[in-house]
Amino acid sequence: MQGLLAALAEIVGPAAVLARPEELLVYEADGLTVHGALPSAVVLPSDKTEVARVVRACRAHGVPFVPRGAGTGLSGGAIALEHGVVIECSRLNRILRIDAANRIAVVQPGVVNAELLKAVAGHGLFYAPDPSSQLACTLGGNAAENSGGPHTLKYGTTTNHVLALELVLPDGEIVRLGSPVGVAPGYDLVGAVVGSEGTLGVLTELTVRLSPLPERADTLLGIFGDVVSACRAVGAIIASGLVPAALEIVDKRTIAAVEASVYAAGLPTDAGAVLLVELDGPALAVARQLERVRAHCLAAGAHEVAVARDAEERQRFWRARKGAFGAMGRLAPDLYVHDAVVPRARLPEVLERVCEIGDRHGLRLSNVFHAGDGNLHPNISFDRRDREELARVTAAGEEILRVCVEAGGVISGEHGIGTEKREYMRLVFSDADLGAMCRLRAAFDPEHACNPGKVFPTTRFCMESDPKARGYEHVELA
Amino acid sequence: MQGLLAALAEIVGPAAVLARPEELLVYEADGLTVHGALPSAVVLPSDKTEVARVVRACRAHGVPFVPRGAGTGLSGGAIALEHGVVIECSRLNRILRIDAANRIAVVQPGVVNAELLKAVAGHGLFYAPDPSSQLACTLGGNAAENSGGPHTLKYGTTTNHVLALELVLPDGEIVRLGSPVGVAPGYDLVGAVVGSEGTLGVLTELTVRLSPLPERADTLLGIFGDVVSACRAVGAIIASGLVPAALEIVDKRTIAAVEASVYAAGLPTDAGAVLLVELDGPALAVARQLERVRAHCLAAGAHEVAVARDAEERQRFWRARKGAFGAMGRLAPDLYVHDAVVPRARLPEVLERVCEIGDRHGLRLSNVFHAGDGNLHPNISFDRRDREELARVTAAGEEILRVCVEAGGVISGEHGIGTEKREYMRLVFSDADLGAMCRLRAAFDPEHACNPGKVFPTTRFCMESDPKARGYEHVELA
Repeated sequence: MQGLLAALAEIVGPAAVLARPEELLVYEADGLTVHGALPSAVVLPSDKTEVARVVRACRAHGVPFVPRGAGTGLSGGAIALEHGVVIECSRLNRILRIDAANRIAVVQPGVVNAELLKAVAGHGLFYAPDPSSQLACTLGGNAAENSGGPHTLKYGTTTNHVLALELVLPDGEIVRLGSPVGVAPGYDLVGAVVGSEGTLGVLTELTVRLSPLPERADTLLGIFGDVVSACRAVGAIIASGLVPAALEIVDKRTIAAVEASVYAAGLPTDAGAVLLVELDGPALAVARQLERVRAHCLAAGAHEVAVARDAEERQRFWRARKGAFGAMGRLAPDLYVHDAVVPRARLPEVLERVCEIGDRHGLRLSNVFHAGDGNLHPNISFDRRDREELARVTAAGEEILRVCVEAGGVISGEHGIGTEKREYMRLVFSDADLGAMCRLRAAFDPEHACNPGKVFPTTRFCMESDPKARGYEHVELA
Repeated sequence: MQGLLAALAEIVGPAAVLARPEELLVYEADGLTVHGALPSAVVLPSDKTEVARVVRACRAHGVPFVPRGAGTGLSGGAIALEHGVVIECSRLNRILRIDAANRIAVVQPGVVNAELLKAVAGHGLFYAPDPSSQLACTLGGNAAENSGGPHTLKYGTTTNHVLALELVLPDGEIVRLGSPVGVAPGYDLVGAVVGSEGTLGVLTELTVRLSPLPERADTLLGIFGDVVSACRAVGAIIASGLVPAALEIVDKRTIAAVEASVYAAGLPTDAGAVLLVELDGPALAVARQLERVRAHCLAAGAHEVAVARDAEERQRFWRARKGAFGAMGRLAPDLYVHDAVVPRARLPEVLERVCEIGDRHGLRLSNVFHAGDGNLHPNISFDRRDREELARVTAAGEEILRVCVEAGGVISGEHGIGTEKREYMRLVFSDADLGAMCRLRAAFDPEHACNPGKVFPTTRFCMESDPKARGYEHVELA
């Protein structure tokens, strides 16, 4: 390891290599606090050449490596298993180009999501994917996890907004994928790399699509007696052909936590659930759509429907929604944020079962979620130091995933698999289906040097799925 | 070969195996008439099990195979090089499920694009990708080529509308990729397979996204003195933040051909260019947007701006636009349809250079194209029996591609690479970039048994790009 540390220091300079225990501690986990692993070192390269040299040095020393953005991920994707080296991208933080005429931006992976929004707003443009952590999370991390956000319903996830990538492959080769014009001949490897959770290489540049700012955006609040009525309103809104920018449900427990926090926005704490509906587009259309949404909410049983009176109030509502995880975090030392997706039409029954699971395990479970996408976020407040409670959290989590998959859903909508849900990939995919993915991994990283132990049930399973890779030496993860 | 024919006949029944020369002749080419190759046999399986068995039989006999839809492709992607077996998907033509609540349809690959539109219209839904050949082309072929169409500007290409796939891999294994809920954990292999031009396996089922029919759609015709003014209008419309469903330019020569054909729609034959603008969405917004588009057209120098008076006239305009290739086909025995993409802002200069190239080579070149996407379709009318003219067509084609790439574009927007443009992949990609794609191919088909000779410059190049595959036996293509 000393040899590798010296090599890394030579590449990036000694100040950009962290290896003292107290320096490494903050890299022990990401947003998923229950899974942890200390890296051997953290290295902070400043350009693509340094990234490539760092990767090659790790390979030469037989040490795995893990690309990392801001560490806000929620599935353990950015932790270094097998004592790997963390390649932190925070110094690759420049916006290289904003091309307003062609509506694209070229950025380095360490640019913070919200910084890009600020930089392009003056051009009448915005970058659509808006994860709740957007004040901290980076565009490289967003691409690695294929992040979503409330606006996914209308605008799609990160994969719909990344046009081209520059990537250091796990063997140190630098390649460019895709094209800034939005279509590219040959295989769509941009799509395969986006969402690959840092297992196919280290991003060094992204070309992203910018969208024109809508002429008008309005936010409506439907106040409901219970979550199921709010879900019914969501179903009716979608069935009517409307495509809101966002359709979010916040349940009673989450409202209480938010209103007791710095994110307080005047949400009614006596409501069973609040439905936040964002409509954007041409001003005349938005005004009329608001009326239609209001009618659907009332028909579904809303006690009250309010529209944000001005931009300031609208932003307050959204800060409350996006701050919900932070607010929940104040209720207990730890927060487990789940992320399953079910067909929209099955939301009410699945939510009922999710709540029953939480109650049965005696857990404090709340729900704040992207209802329009069927993307659930059951949140469990707990204390990981209480091993017995942690065991109940884990058991409930597995039950929740099974219920969602049985309803025709999947185990992750926007947070990734990481270390958290790798065992559950088999709930969704057959061995043959998973094996097809493993073949892709083997094509770029047959030895699992790049972010090992993520996404797939076991490293052994993945390696054995590659007909050509059978026989590789490897260590089964604990 | 006789052994394979007997095996195929046993799998699908003798009537579904075609091997007589007169039966094979129609499979000699696809819509790209200048590239041809006779298959050894054509087989028409009726379900996924038969497809898998056919693939395994071909592999057992060492014969390559090529999946084929309706054969309307324009880049030679569906022809059987190396005397392969064509696997025709026309019998896999059932719509398996329409789920209006979740806005998805599950279809077999042989379903004709327009048939799906008909089937879902009653639910207030539509399938967005609308290639000009949609009355004939199939959804499997659309997925293989990642087909676009006029509505790509607002709705994206096929890849944005395919949620899940069932696929027989080149080794005969059946896998399911993606998820009907629209996001799926693990690698996005759906994205990699869509646009892979039949080189990664044979599709047997697709789950596609349906979109709500817009409340209103209007089509506006801007009549311009020349193509460059029409391009200027396109730039102004986009810069204003409007997102029309389609922005199409038809030039003078194409108008003349269309108006002399069955597709005649009353387009002004004395115009230098017509800009077709489709606006769709909420009725109030569309009405106002029409006025804004009208103003942009007039400011850019339009002589006249007309709005289709009713649905019948609107459909006539679109039939004219989509029939343009057919109409051009009447001018000469052959039509070469190019398909490059350039950054929208550079359309005027690129078009001028494209026309200059056509003139210099003494060719009848016309332009009808997706201006909003920067997707050019320079069409050359010619007679392939005239070898000297064919040589000029080829030389001009290469010059056009070089001009587009120099302008920051790519060599194909929606027609694929196939056999047609494989040599030109190097204009866009470095060997390392192409090598990354070849690794993916090698992961699924190291011996290039599935649709050999397509997409990549040479089979040898592709095989040698896979570090693990070096040393495979193979025949270099002529």
